[in-house]
Amino acid sequence: MPATTLHQLAALIGGRVVGDASLRISGIAPIREAAAGQITFLSNPRYVDELLSTRASAVILGPRHEGAEGPAHLARIITDDPYYGMSQVIRHFHDRPFQPTGISPLASIGQGVSMGREVSIHPFVVVGDRAVIGDRVTLAPGCYVGEDAVIGEESWLYPNVTVRERVRLGRRVIIHSGTVVGSDGFGYAFHQGEHRKIPQVGTVVIEDDVELGANVSVDRATLGQTVIGRGTKVDNLVQIAHNVTIGERSIIVAQAGISGSTTLGKGVVLAGQVGVVGHLTIGDGVRVGAQSGVAQNVPAGQDLSGSPAIAHRQWLAVQATLPLLPDIRRRLHRLEEDLHALQRQIERPRRAAKPGQAARRRAAKRSKRA
Amino acid sequence: MPATTLHQLAALIGGRVVGDASLRISGIAPIREAAAGQITFLSNPRYVDELLSTRASAVILGPRHEGAEGPAHLARIITDDPYYGMSQVIRHFHDRPFQPTGISPLASIGQGVSMGREVSIHPFVVVGDRAVIGDRVTLAPGCYVGEDAVIGEESWLYPNVTVRERVRLGRRVIIHSGTVVGSDGFGYAFHQGEHRKIPQVGTVVIEDDVELGANVSVDRATLGQTVIGRGTKVDNLVQIAHNVTIGERSIIVAQAGISGSTTLGKGVVLAGQVGVVGHLTIGDGVRVGAQSGVAQNVPAGQDLSGSPAIAHRQWLAVQATLPLLPDIRRRLHRLEEDLHALQRQIERPRRAAKPGQAARRRAAKRSKRA
Amino acid sequence: MPATTLHQLAALIGGRVVGDASLRISGIAPIREAAAGQITFLSNPRYVDELLSTRASAVILGPRHEGAEGPAHLARIITDDPYYGMSQVIRHFHDRPFQPTGISPLASIGQGVSMGREVSIHPFVVVGDRAVIGDRVTLAPGCYVGEDAVIGEESWLYPNVTVRERVRLGRRVIIHSGTVVGSDGFGYAFHQGEHRKIPQVGTVVIEDDVELGANVSVDRATLGQTVIGRGTKVDNLVQIAHNVTIGERSIIVAQAGISGSTTLGKGVVLAGQVGVVGHLTIGDGVRVGAQSGVAQNVPAGQDLSGSPAIAHRQWLAVQATLPLLPDIRRRLHRLEEDLHALQRQIERPRRAAKPGQAARRRAAKRSKRA
Repeated sequence: MPATTLHQLAALIGGRVVGDASLRISGIAPIREAAAGQITFLSNPRYVDELLSTRASAVILGPRHEGAEGPAHLARIITDDPYYGMSQVIRHFHDRPFQPTGISPLASIGQGVSMGREVSIHPFVVVGDRAVIGDRVTLAPGCYVGEDAVIGEESWLYPNVTVRERVRLGRRVIIHSGTVVGSDGFGYAFHQGEHRKIPQVGTVVIEDDVELGANVSVDRATLGQTVIGRGTKVDNLVQIAHNVTIGERSIIVAQAGISGSTTLGKGVVLAGQVGVVGHLTIGDGVRVGAQSGVAQNVPAGQDLSGSPAIAHRQWLAVQATLPLLPDIRRRLHRLEEDLHALQRQIERPRRAAKPGQAARRRAAKRSKRA
Repeated sequence: MPATTLHQLAALIGGRVVGDASLRISGIAPIREAAAGQITFLSNPRYVDELLSTRASAVILGPRHEGAEGPAHLARIITDDPYYGMSQVIRHFHDRPFQPTGISPLASIGQGVSMGREVSIHPFVVVGDRAVIGDRVTLAPGCYVGEDAVIGEESWLYPNVTVRERVRLGRRVIIHSGTVVGSDGFGYAFHQGEHRKIPQVGTVVIEDDVELGANVSVDRATLGQTVIGRGTKVDNLVQIAHNVTIGERSIIVAQAGISGSTTLGKGVVLAGQVGVVGHLTIGDGVRVGAQSGVAQNVPAGQDLSGSPAIAHRQWLAVQATLPLLPDIRRRLHRLEEDLHALQRQIERPRRAAKPGQAARRRAAKRSKRA
Repeated sequence: MPATTLHQLAALIGGRVVGDASLRISGIAPIREAAAGQITFLSNPRYVDELLSTRASAVILGPRHEGAEGPAHLARIITDDPYYGMSQVIRHFHDRPFQPTGISPLASIGQGVSMGREVSIHPFVVVGDRAVIGDRVTLAPGCYVGEDAVIGEESWLYPNVTVRERVRLGRRVIIHSGTVVGSDGFGYAFHQGEHRKIPQVGTVVIEDDVELGANVSVDRATLGQTVIGRGTKVDNLVQIAHNVTIGERSIIVAQAGISGSTTLGKGVVLAGQVGVVGHLTIGDGVRVGAQSGVAQNVPAGQDLSGSPAIAHRQWLAVQATLPLLPDIRRRLHRLEEDLHALQRQIERPRRAAKPGQAARRRAAKRSKRA
């Protein structure tokens, strides 16, 4: 990749140059690691102080950081979305044209397979009978595509991915290594003292532009289908149970788990290690904080945290108070003592306690476990 | 599969027909997705309202929902266990006879392997030296069976399963893709500033009728064996550490983890994302709620929740109170102020505070961090 | 392996014999499972009572358990570190010399690969173009090593491991089955209503003597590298996101997850199912309790627990109080009532409530939601 001028990069990402627009840029790197001749980027304000010591020749940043302090020589591209701009510049320097490698003689292709054009089918891939492989699909080494499965065009399966029988992937789906799509749902009927397996005869539909991380599990439906909607991105080690439906453009972060028959709306965000119980409906745009457990239906647009999850704002208040709990207990105990002392003080001179009050005081004493 | 009469299906599942028993049924589908000519089922009362709009011709349901409202034409099979009945009907329509495919010429079979009859050994399978493969075993593409391992008859390993050396699987064991049985336990002795690996020379025993989900990890024992008892079912992405013993007919839901040397009894249920620390004994029939953390031995029959886990009933009470914690803190603060005001009010006219009381009041004031 | 005298084993582990040093020992086994002629060990005091019923002929234990009760015939080796001693004895009885099997004709080796001496490259392994495979490396069946990747000498990849392009492993690295190193980081820029993939063009560096468990995911950096430091041990099903750096000799227990761009120091311990959010710095020697969630930078040497994590000692106090929360609420309610009663009792005779006090009392009444 030949060097590119700052002017060209600014044009690419729709930005504006501050500094020498004829500067030649050889690549992109993080603030700390960038060398002279490279461009870097600032999208997370947390790193603004690191700009001062960067060796990069230029930086991509947003309007609000346009004047951030940096070395005198540092040229700038100002753009509304520096994160997306950074992404475009990476693509500019690193994208290589797709080069199909054809069908390896070491792959095993079943009968009646419909094979697209310009595919890359690598060694030790198995494609089951009657599967449909779209144009420009890549099946990396060790991938398995079951009978009657469909892999949409330009989809890319990294090494050792398993796509079971009848599963359907849309176009431009990316699946990372170790991921399993279409394993049996976890369903048993407890009958006469044993867990009897309920046959899982449904399937999985993965829509266009979905990406699944590494070592994800997506179970096939008991009947019907498990669905991951268009443009949804799933991180590593996520569990998606049978008959789950995830709407479009959702984000499921690593190690989250969604139990059976739950439906997520569009644009839902589950942070890392979140769990959602089964048979729920989670509305559009709901966001759930890391490690939370969702146990009830959630209307659209809510932010939740905690296990069990409550409104995020309320959760923040509870979390701020929680460390004070031992102190609260001590103060409560002291109040009980002080109040009791006061009651005695008042009653003694009057010698006229209301009936029942002494009994209540004794009960209060018994309950003082602090 | 030819259509079957409602009468035949009722006989199959031990149910009773309400409606036209001669109705011909072509398949089974969920309430919302079923078409005319199909049968559906109602096992979760949550979905009873959906019956009204089903297009199914018949429904399987329990005695308590016998009269549930539905379309006029809807025939019914009443049975005590509609979930199990549904399962039998799925099997009726979908089970195909086992057809062994033999040993693929693209598989790699070691020396001295004992190979059962009617096996299906698919391409790119490796079977190590001296392994024992039972009758009617299926090893799907990409599976690895290590040296001296034993795979009991009618067991089924889905694509890309790893069974390490000397591991023993019972009969009718099902293992889903990406699962690893017999990886080294996580054991190190910290010696002279380094974590020194403790050789993990034990093994794993998986008893009859166990099912392991996708991307599960079951570590081999340091010495001795890790054991999963007969009929136990393990969901996806579960961690089972070295020297764990799980009793019969237990249920381990997705993303749960059991630490080393812990013993679970029979019929234990760990819900999703539960963690159990090492060297514990969990009694028969214990049930642990989702995302809980078990850090102590648990007697048989208990229900636990929370992290650290407490009795489920107690946990419910705590969880109901937790969102009120900020309010509790405010009320406590107000009480302290009111009580203090009252103390002053009483003492002023008397001018006879008990010795030490003023000092205590000052201390209370200092502790008021609310 | 021929039998070994107790004297020889004591010399091996630097211990001292109590009993018959000429005793011949045939192997090592856990306390409950050991047979006559075998040695066992006691490192966890939890099991000291089991010594009484062991059938082992000898036991390895520490000075503080030298006099632990056991059968009369039981000989002893006393050593300062019985756990490490046990480990050495296992190695003595079980280690087999490394026997390279060469390059299987069923493996697929790319162009320009630098292949070390005495390697074991098993069937259905793929080694990409220009990869560097060190001396005495083992690549078990189904492993994938991408283009330009480097596998340091004496490293061992168990079956079905995926090491993506350009990843670099140090020497003596062990990776268990199903683990993926170098999958794309989870990075998207939300632009014009869609999550646009940010190309992940960095890599992963795994330093010497690292061990990764089964079904682990280590993502490659967006730019730069994800790093796991020398001697660090990672358990099963752990998530390590893009641009994470883990220092030397750390311990990451099963199902923990570390989010993007977070840096862990040396000797950090994350217990099982811990989550750490992104862009944090966790100091040397920090230890985090099971299921905790770390959401802030942590100075060196701290012990944390909880989600969100707080100082472990403080967390213990909170956890001890938490089950009392419903009781605290009840006591608070009673106090409010009692104080109110007292206020009325005092005010009635005087008929001279301070201005505003009555209003406050009404407000207090409104807030009594208990």
